[in-house]
Order: sequence, then structure tokens, then C-alpha cells
Amino acid sequence: MASMAAAFIKPSNLFPQSPITFTKAVTPPIMLPMSLRVKTKTHRRIRVSCGLIDPDGGKLVELIVEESMRGSKNREALSLPRIKLSRIDLQWVHVLSEGWASPLTGFMRESEFLQTLHFNSLRLQDGSVVNMSVPIVLAIDDDFKNRIGDSSKVALFGSDDRPVAILNDIEIYKHPKEERIARTWGTTASGLPYVDEAIKNAGNWLIGGDLEVIEPIKYHDGLDRFRLSPAQLRNEFTSRNADAVFAFQLRNPVHNGHALLMTDTRRRLLNMGYNNPILLLNPLGGYTKADDVPLHWRIKQHQKVLEDGVLDPETTVVSIFPSPMHYAGPTEVQWHAKARINAGANFYIVGRDPAGMGHPTEKRDLYDADHGKKVLSMAPGLERLNILPFKVAAYDKTQGKMAFFDPSRPQDFLFISGTKMRNLARNKENPPDGFMCPSGWNVLVEYYKSLVPAENGRIPKPEAVAA
Amino acid sequence: MASMAAAFIKPSNLFPQSPITFTKAVTPPIMLPMSLRVKTKTHRRIRVSCGLIDPDGGKLVELIVEESMRGSKNREALSLPRIKLSRIDLQWVHVLSEGWASPLTGFMRESEFLQTLHFNSLRLQDGSVVNMSVPIVLAIDDDFKNRIGDSSKVALFGSDDRPVAILNDIEIYKHPKEERIARTWGTTASGLPYVDEAIKNAGNWLIGGDLEVIEPIKYHDGLDRFRLSPAQLRNEFTSRNADAVFAFQLRNPVHNGHALLMTDTRRRLLNMGYNNPILLLNPLGGYTKADDVPLHWRIKQHQKVLEDGVLDPETTVVSIFPSPMHYAGPTEVQWHAKARINAGANFYIVGRDPAGMGHPTEKRDLYDADHGKKVLSMAPGLERLNILPFKVAAYDKTQGKMAFFDPSRPQDFLFISGTKMRNLARNKENPPDGFMCPSGWNVLVEYYKSLVPAENGRIPKPEAVAA
Repeated sequence: MASMAAAFIKPSNLFPQSPITFTKAVTPPIMLPMSLRVKTKTHRRIRVSCGLIDPDGGKLVELIVEESMRGSKNREALSLPRIKLSRIDLQWVHVLSEGWASPLTGFMRESEFLQTLHFNSLRLQDGSVVNMSVPIVLAIDDDFKNRIGDSSKVALFGSDDRPVAILNDIEIYKHPKEERIARTWGTTASGLPYVDEAIKNAGNWLIGGDLEVIEPIKYHDGLDRFRLSPAQLRNEFTSRNADAVFAFQLRNPVHNGHALLMTDTRRRLLNMGYNNPILLLNPLGGYTKADDVPLHWRIKQHQKVLEDGVLDPETTVVSIFPSPMHYAGPTEVQWHAKARINAGANFYIVGRDPAGMGHPTEKRDLYDADHGKKVLSMAPGLERLNILPFKVAAYDKTQGKMAFFDPSRPQDFLFISGTKMRNLARNKENPPDGFMCPSGWNVLVEYYKSLVPAENGRIPKPEAVAA
Repeated sequence: MASMAAAFIKPSNLFPQSPITFTKAVTPPIMLPMSLRVKTKTHRRIRVSCGLIDPDGGKLVELIVEESMRGSKNREALSLPRIKLSRIDLQWVHVLSEGWASPLTGFMRESEFLQTLHFNSLRLQDGSVVNMSVPIVLAIDDDFKNRIGDSSKVALFGSDDRPVAILNDIEIYKHPKEERIARTWGTTASGLPYVDEAIKNAGNWLIGGDLEVIEPIKYHDGLDRFRLSPAQLRNEFTSRNADAVFAFQLRNPVHNGHALLMTDTRRRLLNMGYNNPILLLNPLGGYTKADDVPLHWRIKQHQKVLEDGVLDPETTVVSIFPSPMHYAGPTEVQWHAKARINAGANFYIVGRDPAGMGHPTEKRDLYDADHGKKVLSMAPGLERLNILPFKVAAYDKTQGKMAFFDPSRPQDFLFISGTKMRNLARNKENPPDGFMCPSGWNVLVEYYKSLVPAENGRIPKPEAVAA
């Protein structure tokens, strides 16, 4: 399938240049008011050709204050007790501000936290259920808790000491770290990357409330133009007249096995009668563990893959998903899927061991490789989403390209794991022809060359990873 | 309220003598066929005065084979691969056989196991959701897995080497012990009683399937007559013309604070307009940890409490709940509530830290004392159940009896914890008058006197416990 996209596409057309002007968008995106679309679909049950899946809770949450209010909100923030946000905290503010976690309107209060931990879902006031599997919480320490006093709001500050947001109607409750970790990861073994980074040394209290974010979150890292919000993505899909949107979550370089899967999914959707299925290639952009390939290298690699025509830019939207990574397997894959409903996707591709990793202290994978897709297919609040389980792709030596594994002739196939791929690139060796487009491969080699060896002379060793 | 029940009741009338003739049942219980009652309520929506809450899934599951089939099923069992049941396994067979876990029809297959771990609930084929928070699973080891071969069924044998049940259409899947423990208890700390007893040394595989139980499970311990099945309880409530059933789960001796709560609940239900609310006092009869008071002593104590008129036998049904105890706090309290729906209860009393215990390795309670009732009130599949949160009862020194705590005069109240109660009984000391009826207290003292000191000369030390 990789060979299908024959025409060489000009790089400048492949990625959105700004949130508004986008890939080959000849006509400006049609900005249907969200409420209109929701009403049409829910209450009148009219099938609109471009009607996207409704966001969770019926309305996409957006928490960024109107531009006219920025000045006054900024001044208000300066007068409030201050919480300094960590890098990951800020990523969650970003996620919340754009409605990826709709219908959440801010950091979780205890009721939402407990429902997330115990049920991976939230029951809304109308009795309906939405999925919510990872706690989106903000930790504070005893000192700060005491400093808040009677204030019903606090200000959230960035690392540059500028106000980012106001948290209103706050609720402070205990941070049961051990329980949070056990119920989210299914283990409390030491060495879980997100736990080490964001929980172990965090405060003993959690603070929930409704967010007012003063202005859109930007990172000024050259990649902000690739960070489309769910509303922007929905506009893009609408402007392209998408009648199906299928999302592919990844935190790794794209090889031709991934590409095969994505193009084959489009083919299957066309066979099902859809006229214009659009792929949302949505690499995760928040915190990842030290031995994952960093975001800007991955984006560079994705760009090459598209330039080489491995994926068709006419039917592909590449955009960064701002969430940090938990590596919480079957629990986290639900979050990855749910967030993409809010971005307009009604199909979700799920692979082997999604969001999984090696057990931090035992010689085995942390999760059963099949649990992710099983749990996803049964998850409360995701009934509306069509789950597309991954077929296994491997390198077919007889064809010299990635193909779906044919169990009748196993001897013809070569499985190239994430570990093997990374080791090859680290050692500047080449994978077999047809595994990845050469320009994409070169990005990986370049990345590993750029790494400064650690004090012991070793380069951090990549681990086995899944898509 | 304890003083309300003034008349002295003949002991023989207080407890059911057999599953059929029961407390003061002058007329024989009316045996409405379950299907008829369900049909009337679900499909025709006619409010019947004695219509009890529907079991989960609409129909009470009963897995005991017809008497005429016992011989042939027994012979069939003898021809199948054999699993020897542990004491706890047998208790689960008992639970399943009588439909406490309706709509489960046997030990969980992987789909049910995963939904239980991740969502504390099961989605049924019609899209409805029932609560299911603790895994009801059967572990086997590698050897036995290999011995099963191609057989689609296995036989379950008791410790006396007699066949207990057949498990049909079996499914064998991995037993992810660490993940099961972490997601069920919210900790993997060593020293969790159920884990030590039933998981740590259990096999690496789980076997699910549909149960056919050859005959009703009996323990021949003198207490079988107190073990009423959900169907028998429903018949009893119907025969008493109950228009509300409120369940009280406990694994501890009943003191006058508990009794106050139960009698006050009845008063509240009468005020709400119910004519005949019946209390299901349903002590847990399965596995409990070593320092809990054993079942037969507790039943003895409950008998004394009823004989002394602390609870009104006219409106109380005492029966044993056959489940083993997990001590899994907010996760387990859902199971305790859900099982009582199946037994006909539509009100459930929940206290402070239900199913909680001390953290096995840290100096704190394992669970936040309020999480149990919060989680219970939000749990999927329990929306039909009315949750009645506990009011705090304490010893009112001015009245010389247990009373609801009055925060305006805290100095008048004495809190007697489970630990303190047990320490007093162990030391043959008396609690303040009015804490527990003297004959009930004497049972406790007698129990501790009966304990043979351990090798180190110490009697196992009671821990702080909740109702």
C-alpha cells in the first residue's frame, strides 16, 4: 500500500501552516457552530453528510477566556494565591483548555477522581456516562494548602512566572498516591516513568476546580503550528467533507507497517460505503519517557514519511495531541480513544499492547498484549466509537515490503520490534528495504547520532515499545 | 431506640428453623414464582404491593441442577478432569449457585474479569449495566491446565473428594495476580489477608465457565439453617408483605449503636410512607481474617441481641451471606450492596470505612473512611439501590446509652472503636452500660476466653474494624 501514494508532494503542503490555513484547504474551513451541529444530530436525527461524532457530554468544552477579558483575568490572577505548574501540569492545562477531556471543565474534584479510579468513567447529571480513565489532577503540598486560606480560587503560574489560568470553586482533597498508582497502572512497582516524574514527589493534596485559561497554551518550540485543538480539527474535517474520521495514536516513528495499516483502514472504510474517510495521525506531544524518541524528531520523521508519499496528504491530517503519556496500557488507551472522539474521530485504530511498556522490575511486559484492545472494546462511554483492531504487519521477505502477516507462510516474514528498530538506527545500520522510507530512517539515525553519551559512555538504551 | 423493643421474645422464634418455616411466620410463605414476579414488574409495569426490586439482569440466577439430574451429573463429574476446591473456592461456588452474583452463571471468563477489574461493572447483551466489583474467579496451576487437554468441561471437587459441580464451556486465561491485586485493593502491600489466603499461592491461570452445581452447598456446622438463598429471602420478604427491604452487612458483633441505626432506619422508612420495611441483618459467613470474631460466635451474639429485644424479630430477618471477605474497602462495598439487591433489598445501609482495615504495612487505615460511601453512591449498576449513609453513633454518657452523636456537645460522647470493644472483651472487662446487651457481651467474653494463646503466649490482637 505504501507504493499507492505515487505522486511526490511538496513538503509545504503536508502540514498545517497555522491552525486555520491547512493542508491543501482550497476553500476556507466551514465553521459550523458546534451547538447547531449537536442539535441537528441529537434532537432531529437528520443525517448530515459532514456531521461529526458529538463530543462527550454533547458540547465541546473550551476553557480559554475571551480575548477582551485577558487583561482583567491576568490582573485577577496576580492577586490570588499562586500554584507554580510543572511541565506536566501545564500539559494538562493545555489538554483541558481545548476540551480533549470534555466534559471536564478543569482539574478533577474528588467525585470525578474517584469515579475515574474505580469506574474509568463519569456519570453526568442527565444519567449518561462518558469515559474517563486517567486522573487529570493537580497536586499541592501542605504548605500551599495552608497558604490558600479561605480563597475560593487560585492562580496557576507557568515556569516563566506569568499567570496561565485561574482555578475557580476549588475543592481540596487527599492525594492517595499509592491507591492512585495501583488503580491506574495495576502495579505499584518502582520505576513507572510518569509516577517517578509526576506523582512520587508531588504534594499530598489534590486541588480541583473550574479552569479559566488566560490565553491559548503555546510552547514556542517551532511545533505550535502542528498543535490543532479539537475545535480546529473538527473544522478541518468539516472543510474536507469527511464522512468518517479514523484516528491513529502514536508516540513512535511511523514505519511502513503503520502506514499499511492506515491506508488499509481507509480502504476498508471506503468498502463500507464511506465516501471520504480522513485519517487523523495524532502523535502524542506531552511528556514521554527518556528513551522514547523526542517529539521534534518524531515530527521531522512523520514529515519525511508524508513527503515520500507513504501516506496520502489529501486524506491525512497530522496534528499533535498535547497529552502527557502515562504508559498505563489498557487504562490509558481508553483516554487516548476518548480524547479523539472529542476531536471528531468516530473510528479508532488499536494495536498490540497499546500504551504498554516493559514491567519496570520484572522481565516481562507490564500488560497482556491483548488486554488493551479488549478493555477498549468494552469500556463504558466508548460505545459510540468504532474500534478497529490492528492486524499484525511484518516484513514480507518475498515482496520486500511490509505486509499483513500470513500465518500460512510464517517463514517468509520478519518481525522488527520497536527495540530492534531503535537498535539498528542507533548503530547506523539499515533496516531491510521497504521497512521505512529512507528519508524517514535517516531522521532516526540523525537523532541517535545527536545524543550525547551519558557519563558512563552509554547512550540510553531504547526499550521495546508499541505504537 | 434499643429500649423500644420491650417485649421479651421467645428465642425459638427469632431465627429461621429451616429455610421454609421462619421467624413467627404464622402463614406459610407465599411462593410466587420468580419469573411471574419479574414479568409483572418489568413488562407490565404494574406496581404490586409486595413487588421486590428486580435481581440484576432481570432474573435471579440459580445454578443447582434439578434433583432428578443429580445422579447423572454426579456420574458425569466423576468422568471429567478434576479441580479440588479450596475452602474459599467452595464459598464462591455457593455464592454463584444461589444467584447472589446474578447475572453471573459461573466463574468469570476473561471478558467479565477484565470488566470487573477496570470498570467494576458488566455490560449485558441488551446494553444494560450491572455492578460487579470483585473478581469471582477460579485459579488453576500449569499442571492442571495441561491435564485438561481438549475437554470443554471440568469437575469441581470438595475437600471430601466428592463432586460439587461441573464447569461447562470453559475458558482458560492468564491470572495476572499483581494487576488483580492492585486494581482490586488499590495496593500491593504484602499482608492483605485475602491475597495471602487465596491469591499469592494460587495457580497462574484462571478458568471460567458456566456452573452446574450438583446439590445445594451445605457446611454441616450447625448454621446451615441460617443460610437462606436470595430466592428464599425473597420468598420470606414477600410472605411478610415487605414493601421495603433494608440490608445491613456486617462481620462484627452487633452493638447498640448498630441497633440504633437499624431501628432508626426503619423509623425513617415509615416516615417516608412505607408500611412495612423489613431489615435484612445479613452477617458475612465466608472467609474472614484470623483476628475477626468467627461466624458461629457472631451468630450466637446476634441471637442474644435479638432475644434481648434490641432488634424487633417481627421486622428483622437474620441470615448468613455466604461470601468470603476481601477487605477491599470501596471496591468490596459495591459487591456487598449488589449481592443484596439480588436478595431483594432496595435500601442499603453504609457506614464509615465499609470493608476497610488497617494498612498492612503502614500506620494508617488502608482506605479513606469516606470513600466507601462516596464510591457506592456513584457506582455503575447500583442506581436502583437507595444508599443510606450511616449516622455516627456513640455512647452518650448523659443518657447512658448509644445515641447519634450531637456535635454541639462532644464532651458527652464516648467513641468505642472495634479495637477497644475487642480489647475490653479480651480482658473480661465490661463496656459502659447500654453499649451492648449483657448477654451479647458475655458471648464475646466467652469467645476470647476460648482462644488458646499462640506459642508466644499471646492471643491474636484484634484490629480496628468497621461494620
